[in-house]
Amino acid sequence: MNVRQSIDMDLRATMDALGAKAREAAEALRTCPASTRTAAIQAMARHLRARTEEVLRANAVDMANATGKTDRLMLNEARVKGIADALDQVADLPDPVGAERARWKRPNGLDIARVSTPIGVIGMIYESRPNVTADAAAICVRSGNVVILRTGSEALNSALAIHGAIAAGLEEAGLPAECVQMVPTADRDAVGMMLEGLNGTIDVIVPRGGKTLVARVQDEARVPVFAHLEGICHTYLQARADPKMAVDITVNAKMRRVEICGATETILIDRAAADSLLPPVAEALEGMGCELRGDADSRAIHGSIKPAEEADWSTEYLAPIVSVRVVEGLDEALDHINRYGSGHTDAIITEDAAVAEAFLARLDSAIVVWNASTQFADGGEFGFGAEIGIATGKMHARGPVGPEQLTSFKYVVRGTGQTRP
Amino acid sequence: MNVRQSIDMDLRATMDALGAKAREAAEALRTCPASTRTAAIQAMARHLRARTEEVLRANAVDMANATGKTDRLMLNEARVKGIADALDQVADLPDPVGAERARWKRPNGLDIARVSTPIGVIGMIYESRPNVTADAAAICVRSGNVVILRTGSEALNSALAIHGAIAAGLEEAGLPAECVQMVPTADRDAVGMMLEGLNGTIDVIVPRGGKTLVARVQDEARVPVFAHLEGICHTYLQARADPKMAVDITVNAKMRRVEICGATETILIDRAAADSLLPPVAEALEGMGCELRGDADSRAIHGSIKPAEEADWSTEYLAPIVSVRVVEGLDEALDHINRYGSGHTDAIITEDAAVAEAFLARLDSAIVVWNASTQFADGGEFGFGAEIGIATGKMHARGPVGPEQLTSFKYVVRGTGQTRP
Repeated sequence: MNVRQSIDMDLRATMDALGAKAREAAEALRTCPASTRTAAIQAMARHLRARTEEVLRANAVDMANATGKTDRLMLNEARVKGIADALDQVADLPDPVGAERARWKRPNGLDIARVSTPIGVIGMIYESRPNVTADAAAICVRSGNVVILRTGSEALNSALAIHGAIAAGLEEAGLPAECVQMVPTADRDAVGMMLEGLNGTIDVIVPRGGKTLVARVQDEARVPVFAHLEGICHTYLQARADPKMAVDITVNAKMRRVEICGATETILIDRAAADSLLPPVAEALEGMGCELRGDADSRAIHGSIKPAEEADWSTEYLAPIVSVRVVEGLDEALDHINRYGSGHTDAIITEDAAVAEAFLARLDSAIVVWNASTQFADGGEFGFGAEIGIATGKMHARGPVGPEQLTSFKYVVRGTGQTRP
Repeated sequence: MNVRQSIDMDLRATMDALGAKAREAAEALRTCPASTRTAAIQAMARHLRARTEEVLRANAVDMANATGKTDRLMLNEARVKGIADALDQVADLPDPVGAERARWKRPNGLDIARVSTPIGVIGMIYESRPNVTADAAAICVRSGNVVILRTGSEALNSALAIHGAIAAGLEEAGLPAECVQMVPTADRDAVGMMLEGLNGTIDVIVPRGGKTLVARVQDEARVPVFAHLEGICHTYLQARADPKMAVDITVNAKMRRVEICGATETILIDRAAADSLLPPVAEALEGMGCELRGDADSRAIHGSIKPAEEADWSTEYLAPIVSVRVVEGLDEALDHINRYGSGHTDAIITEDAAVAEAFLARLDSAIVVWNASTQFADGGEFGFGAEIGIATGKMHARGPVGPEQLTSFKYVVRGTGQTRP
């Protein structure tokens, strides 16, 4: 056996053990009272506050080793406090485990209930934001799910320090520390093993990070994945859009934060209103430093728009750039979105309720919006309290994934001796 | 190019075309009014009745070619009428498309609704029951989903004749005939291509058939699967079971129909009640021709029970055979079910409500039952009107899969100009 094989076998054994321990811990977390899960998350927050210095020391090691941008990686006292406060907020969310989602009686007297149950074991693969370690742990525990966390190597020391507080919180509440485990190595092969499901112990993978990571996960995973690859979101200014609303919403949808998945990347504008609507919208965006790339029709109306190439319509800029296209009406707007969109979030701005309802009904994106900013695509803004990510697939979870969407369900049938004829 | 390659390329082209046409048809089926889907299913029933002779002629060809058991394959006038009547029943079910499952208002005035949407394109792979062709078509159309049907070669002529009526019904209602397509060949490679997803056009695979088929599908599929591999169902006679109920329910759960997935395969019985409960239960089963295989404790109580081997506890007999085991109480019963069960349907018989509720809460099977027969595991019995199968996975669908579970959802956000702070 050469050295490389020996390392692989060690990693395999380590990862398999994580999976086996996760599966073991799942029953305790699933069957304990909701108050125990609440207490565990609150205790995590307390332990994290108490360990602020230790976490900052670990983060300093990560920062010293880091290359490139480090703002996402950097922690300070205020940020650690923010992470702990977020834990307390998740502790306050309703516990979905065991909730009756429906209950009905059959003519033969059988009483049937559909009851929420945890999915089981979640594999979370993310990059270098230390807060994700705590956020993901809390939302998984809130929904009764065990989680195996795999952070990017740049944040490993910070994540391990935060994980220490999480494990202490779980144990204080009388739960197995293995309800939340961290992959203790930066070896990239660990990701591949998680994507294979660790011998059937992982029920679903949640990737959170850049396009390269998510694409790899979606391509290689042998278990279900909750993820969005891209957010190519559209704001469609329909002929009867209110002019002030058109400017305010478009500017917010594009520029509030350009790097998030709910940011608008393409503006569609009805020909009938383009002459009056496009100049003020374009000027407002340009005034904030946004580059516009448009089709010939839009450039004929507003000369400072640069020419768009075919690739622009399917580009998630995540930057102060937006593409602009003039369309003939609802059908052409929907055709464009169906062809180039990513099924994430798309908005229509109009005072015409009938056209708006047609847009909302006909478009099959995870989130469809009328007269509001696409940047509302967020679990917090939806009232879910927290989200582990936003899903653009159609299976199981779609849109912001909060605690409720991290549950499955079972049927509870209560009888009085019924046999089937 | 040799002959084999040429055949493969033809099949590939045929299958890819099915996928592309399915995706094209999906928008029309998804966005038409519910009344159009209802009319289409009713028209399918009418066309099927009108084509009874043609269907029976096609079935006669299948029967003449068939080897082995043919009862599942055989059609007669009454059976064709039964299939048509079942179509009418699905037409009468509530249409789930566009149904608001939840709606709430945010403090900023945003009005958010969660609305049911079809999943998209379903790939249905089944064996030689001709009725499945019509049942699956109807339940998919009812839920707004396009379906690609792949029947076993033995039933291909019957299925194509039934499909003719389905296509005529769709067209009469003004929908594309491609909403329901059949794989027109018995080539087994077609199944492999469906399991790969036909270039991303298939959203979910539903296999329906024997263990070999379902195992292949679950192993090879690169898209989500709604399926159960096995139904190893348990009936647990707790110490405080009502004696008459114990006999009635156990006999029904095992013997009503032995070949269905909800049939009980193992009886667990509390030691405290085994002396009094086991003999009447065993005698009732033996009187109906059921073979009992038990552990040493059960055989000590009732001598005619044959010895069980380890393999018996994980065997889905689908036959008049049942395994029997004496347990010390709830914990040991749950341990046994967790170890050997398949997460399908498990029942407890007891007059002790506290023990029953603990069983219902702690066991994470798709269906958990108190004081009723495991054979109620059925979409019709649950009031779903129809089912496309029973799922034992935890993702998206679980238990009987009716029209509602063949939907996904999207969020509809209605605003009045809100921008995100």
